[in-house]
Amino acid sequence: MFTTLLSQGPLTRAEAGRRAGLSAAAVTKAVRPLIEAGYLVEDADEEARPALGRPANLVRVDGGRALFIGVKVTGDEIIGVLTDLCCRVLLARHLPLADRAPKAVLASAAALVGELLTEADGFGVRVMGLGIAVSGDVDRAEGVVRYSPFLDWREVPLAELAGMTTGLPVTVDNDVRALTVAEQWFGAGVGLSDFAVVTVGAGIGCGLVVHGRVVAGAHGVAGEIGHVTVDPAGPLCRCGNRGCVEAIAGDDAIVRRIRETTGAEVADAAAAAALAHRGDAGARDAYARAGAAIGRGIATVANLLGPERVIISGEGLAAYDLFAEQIREAFTEAAFGSAARCDVQTRPLPFEEWARGAAATAIQSFTAQHTH
Amino acid sequence: MFTTLLSQGPLTRAEAGRRAGLSAAAVTKAVRPLIEAGYLVEDADEEARPALGRPANLVRVDGGRALFIGVKVTGDEIIGVLTDLCCRVLLARHLPLADRAPKAVLASAAALVGELLTEADGFGVRVMGLGIAVSGDVDRAEGVVRYSPFLDWREVPLAELAGMTTGLPVTVDNDVRALTVAEQWFGAGVGLSDFAVVTVGAGIGCGLVVHGRVVAGAHGVAGEIGHVTVDPAGPLCRCGNRGCVEAIAGDDAIVRRIRETTGAEVADAAAAAALAHRGDAGARDAYARAGAAIGRGIATVANLLGPERVIISGEGLAAYDLFAEQIREAFTEAAFGSAARCDVQTRPLPFEEWARGAAATAIQSFTAQHTH
Repeated sequence: MFTTLLSQGPLTRAEAGRRAGLSAAAVTKAVRPLIEAGYLVEDADEEARPALGRPANLVRVDGGRALFIGVKVTGDEIIGVLTDLCCRVLLARHLPLADRAPKAVLASAAALVGELLTEADGFGVRVMGLGIAVSGDVDRAEGVVRYSPFLDWREVPLAELAGMTTGLPVTVDNDVRALTVAEQWFGAGVGLSDFAVVTVGAGIGCGLVVHGRVVAGAHGVAGEIGHVTVDPAGPLCRCGNRGCVEAIAGDDAIVRRIRETTGAEVADAAAAAALAHRGDAGARDAYARAGAAIGRGIATVANLLGPERVIISGEGLAAYDLFAEQIREAFTEAAFGSAARCDVQTRPLPFEEWARGAAATAIQSFTAQHTH
Repeated sequence: MFTTLLSQGPLTRAEAGRRAGLSAAAVTKAVRPLIEAGYLVEDADEEARPALGRPANLVRVDGGRALFIGVKVTGDEIIGVLTDLCCRVLLARHLPLADRAPKAVLASAAALVGELLTEADGFGVRVMGLGIAVSGDVDRAEGVVRYSPFLDWREVPLAELAGMTTGLPVTVDNDVRALTVAEQWFGAGVGLSDFAVVTVGAGIGCGLVVHGRVVAGAHGVAGEIGHVTVDPAGPLCRCGNRGCVEAIAGDDAIVRRIRETTGAEVADAAAAAALAHRGDAGARDAYARAGAAIGRGIATVANLLGPERVIISGEGLAAYDLFAEQIREAFTEAAFGSAARCDVQTRPLPFEEWARGAAATAIQSFTAQHTH
């Protein structure tokens, strides 16, 4: 009930009950304590005032009733956001990271969280939870980072360590899954039982929602669209295979291909995109290949799962105009039958969005604990 | 509760309650009417008799309490089975099919069902439902075959038509999904929330169970492992793309490749397998390629969904020794990280198993209607 209002509100009690599958009596029972605790508010819907009689009341979540912190750890910086209960970002802070060892990352994260807690005091509202998003194999239930190749971490009990350091309830999740939670609760996935988020950038990731729940995988691995084989004769991937989507469409792969085919000394993804934007044929071709690989990967997801929508996002979208057409073409070509009816969208994503995803997981944990 | 006992019984009341997530009081309430109606029976567990006191009672489904019919429609025959409530096949009947038009298929199916109903009379138990499995895009909720390329059907309201002809409650489902239901309720998928069934034969299909439910796809397409691209430079597929798993590993594809590379006039899959079993290098190579393609397809499923188990089945398993090793090798090579821990099993599958899958969907519909 609370989740329905959080994602889809404001709604009338009747409509909220219908969407949550609850009777009017059950709605009353669920709503009363939440109104008393200040998490829900009920206002007259002035716009929908009927000619005669009382206007219908609308129930909504009071976003300002609780604050949350989301932290994303990347290879070279930590990004933190302070959000309200509706996952609206109130402020964002970045901190460069010199050392990737768990102890150093934890110290930096604690400093960042401390800064955000001080800011939160200014709002006069308590921070109710901290979410941390890390790439790799993360066991959310146990709060343990099983293996993060990017950070070179193994079996780090991050939730426990961060909880001791900050005093907050901590949720730890894989970064792409966290982003997917944010889309499911507060973004383009609201109300959909089956959708996918595909992230494009340094890595190519994918978060899947099937039957209304984020797929975690029985052994910790799921959504590895980056390692779908597109061309068995293609470039070698860090996973040991050839022609994975990531080995063609990841930032490093694009940069490497441009260097090889044009001889240009492009330093990074930004330089690669700039060269392509200046019209360099070799650079444009590298992006076209990347787009075709991503489109095929998305078609594979659509052919296997038949999602209603695929949301393409990630920092790689800065170069979106360079491969959007090829993504769409390759998807349409490789989608099987009515799987092609899947709605493929793009959502530009500021880097803070990853940290917002982490905050969304904290809001999810908070909601699971406080409403039942 | 009934489903738990059907799939996992006999169980003590306490254990059944634990697995179904019900309190002792709720178990008593759920069990009593089912015992009274004769669907459940409770026996003393003599083997577990304690030294002192009463033995624990075991509750189980009385499989003989109701019968079901499952029908699978293929291009050239109709296969029907009579099963009990526990989906044990009591007898099977085949009927050749001369004409694939809906009217002709319906008449043949009605004749076959009539025959099985007469046999059922001999058991003195009523047939409670009919399941029909058809390849293609099937809308189970509406009972409509949206599109079956194999039969060349479009928008056939099969459940309604078959219901009028036979007088039975009818469930219509896609054949691979029906087989997946049989594995989930009565086979190698019992107790697993995430697994896949991969069928090998004329087509390469895949049924997916995610979060405990069979994936149907938002637009009717799901599990199309046959159209995962393995090699963009590979042979042309009927879907219009190149190098799909099915274009390399389907029966026709294997036969075609053997003809092309060896010049041998192999007539069908059986002749192809026989040639390979006699040691023909070209024929063996065609099967090795097929195995590698299937293994890659399975790895893609594992990388995206991380299932606990993949069950390989289908009539193509007759030639399993010719590609088993290549399936395993390609899977291990392409599986990402801990996705390789997925348990890949093979289950030889008599052709009646497809019809048994159809019966499983009828049992599922019956159970959904009569228990809650």
